[in-house]
Amino acid sequence: MGLLSVGKIKMAIITLTTDFGTADGYVGAMKGVILSLAPNAAIIDISHDVLPQDVRHGARLLATAVPHFPAGAVHVAVVDPGVGGARRGIALRTSLGTFVGPDNGLFTPFLRARVACVALTNPATHRHPVSATFHGRDVFAPVAAHLINGFPLAGLGPAVDDPIALFEPVPIRLPDGQLRAEIVHVDRFGNLVTNVGPLEWAELDPDAIRVVVGGVSLAVHRFYGAVAPGAILALVGSSGHLEIAVREGSAAERLGLGVGATVEVWGV
Amino acid sequence: MGLLSVGKIKMAIITLTTDFGTADGYVGAMKGVILSLAPNAAIIDISHDVLPQDVRHGARLLATAVPHFPAGAVHVAVVDPGVGGARRGIALRTSLGTFVGPDNGLFTPFLRARVACVALTNPATHRHPVSATFHGRDVFAPVAAHLINGFPLAGLGPAVDDPIALFEPVPIRLPDGQLRAEIVHVDRFGNLVTNVGPLEWAELDPDAIRVVVGGVSLAVHRFYGAVAPGAILALVGSSGHLEIAVREGSAAERLGLGVGATVEVWGV
Amino acid sequence: MGLLSVGKIKMAIITLTTDFGTADGYVGAMKGVILSLAPNAAIIDISHDVLPQDVRHGARLLATAVPHFPAGAVHVAVVDPGVGGARRGIALRTSLGTFVGPDNGLFTPFLRARVACVALTNPATHRHPVSATFHGRDVFAPVAAHLINGFPLAGLGPAVDDPIALFEPVPIRLPDGQLRAEIVHVDRFGNLVTNVGPLEWAELDPDAIRVVVGGVSLAVHRFYGAVAPGAILALVGSSGHLEIAVREGSAAERLGLGVGATVEVWGV
Repeated sequence: MGLLSVGKIKMAIITLTTDFGTADGYVGAMKGVILSLAPNAAIIDISHDVLPQDVRHGARLLATAVPHFPAGAVHVAVVDPGVGGARRGIALRTSLGTFVGPDNGLFTPFLRARVACVALTNPATHRHPVSATFHGRDVFAPVAAHLINGFPLAGLGPAVDDPIALFEPVPIRLPDGQLRAEIVHVDRFGNLVTNVGPLEWAELDPDAIRVVVGGVSLAVHRFYGAVAPGAILALVGSSGHLEIAVREGSAAERLGLGVGATVEVWGV
Repeated sequence: MGLLSVGKIKMAIITLTTDFGTADGYVGAMKGVILSLAPNAAIIDISHDVLPQDVRHGARLLATAVPHFPAGAVHVAVVDPGVGGARRGIALRTSLGTFVGPDNGLFTPFLRARVACVALTNPATHRHPVSATFHGRDVFAPVAAHLINGFPLAGLGPAVDDPIALFEPVPIRLPDGQLRAEIVHVDRFGNLVTNVGPLEWAELDPDAIRVVVGGVSLAVHRFYGAVAPGAILALVGSSGHLEIAVREGSAAERLGLGVGATVEVWGV
Repeated sequence: MGLLSVGKIKMAIITLTTDFGTADGYVGAMKGVILSLAPNAAIIDISHDVLPQDVRHGARLLATAVPHFPAGAVHVAVVDPGVGGARRGIALRTSLGTFVGPDNGLFTPFLRARVACVALTNPATHRHPVSATFHGRDVFAPVAAHLINGFPLAGLGPAVDDPIALFEPVPIRLPDGQLRAEIVHVDRFGNLVTNVGPLEWAELDPDAIRVVVGGVSLAVHRFYGAVAPGAILALVGSSGHLEIAVREGSAAERLGLGVGATVEVWGV
């Protein structure tokens, strides 16, 4: 045949997650830098729609997507209000993948899986001149390309022992027995994602709780179709977190609630 | 040289079409699942901007894009308000390509080209645990990866003889001689796409009709530049359908019309 | 091992830049046409969010992204209000890459790097029938695929000696000593990008100027973090142009200014 089997070729994956949008050419510039250094990189867009400068949103988005990638992938993420200032750039190797970006908490969900972490100080792995406002193009993109080309993590710069972690709000057990939780994300469909997740389910039975939010009391259902179109429900979403949803509608609109709003979980 | 010729390597194409947007990480999760199972998949984004839960919009979008892909491509599409309930997941093989997604009419434009169709019931081809709200990640993405890895369609589950088809509004010939059509899509430019298409042109000469819509009567032109900037015109669009457009402007805004509005076609 | 080294496989890059958005399937259709003709093309999205029919915006976006790509890449760009009319389609080879799209000024930033330019008149390199409204699918996409397949540029059509260039506003030195500049782009973060760029810096020291815009007078700082959160500043952005920004905010909102607004640069 002379044809190569697809299965024998191993592409090196670099994913991109930014708050750049795609109307400005910044993402394109990063892709060009990567492909100039690593022509066979498979560049995968995760998102360029992180809310502008919202590091917490970026961290949550990465937590949703990254664990499903091969551990050999390199994930470049740029939500970087501190660019050009004192904040470090880092490369973080974990059992779930390798991350490259600013040390501002963006990689919080992965710090527990940390294997190694270095600061990006080796100028030989950057693009020059390094702009003070666009490390995505001049530092993070070339570092990721070098990594998939086989450049050693330890060669990028000195070890970092204290990468920055975001404070994550956790549900609190109150004296009256309720678990006081909160909404931590609103998705495109208007689903309200809470901070009641896998850790809490170890002690809670979804089938034996009531969820009180925005003045309504809800049972937990298995899927949207368990209630009538337009009805509100609670369910355990695909990330394992308690969510409030409206079947074929938007819970955010229905309840007028957003990130930070209180959700009460009561045993029945 | 030692270099491989590009032309000899055959990548396996998986396209993605969803209503997920890219601000939530859901699309990224699907890409990760695919690449974990099929590291050499060439993942091609068709759209993640299907209107939320608008199956008809998704079907129309697929009809615009898919026929231009190689027939060997696998097209994953997720517009899935019924996820987790009774609706089936299907893999549909057609002469135009293979489709994987919910059986809710999303693949209506391709049912006439059907070669085989199966329900996705083989748990060995899914990701576990299967979330009740995210079959895109846990069923459709892994099934697509298995297909491009050579897993046989028939192994995914039992044959389906009655995949769901959406009702498509067709133009009606009224006693007064007019063809009563309607607007079925508004594109980004504000062009109003009607349901007068290739079937109707078999009996109609675009050069010999008048189009009456929103109180104006229009001749059919060949391209936007045939009228002055800002002028309204009718033309046969790139999908072969009658469209109403404004040169360098938006017909939707000009006429205040959208999907479902009536368009009259009269012989001259 | 039997595994192929990644480094030895050379993918052929085609980038896409359009004003199509991704809600209509037009971009998907172009990708399908490319992959049908060149199955191993690495298709890279630069942007589909060019403002509708805004050729100047498209040119600026290309100028931001393209110079970072390998020179062997083929860049398809479609912002094409004149499609189907008298405007030519062109393929433009430059030292920075090869461009395929309408001859309407979209490639202005690259004309100075021109090596060759031809009109796209060879029907054997187009998809048929050629729609009068979608040359992106029927002319530009197939031409790009043929180019990366090795088809010679000269075979696409006759040489073009006068590709269209957009007028680019340049800063003007007024008798009172000020450099009268203007805002030429507003990015996603609300940064106001001016037309004071590398040419002007040859005669100006950023550290020795004041920037007067919207009634405020600003010094030039090196990066956002040099001022307090919420403060307004001037800086030299990543493209080398003078920008007005608000740290962790939007200068466009703060000042109520957009493209075309006047910026005064004064020596100190």
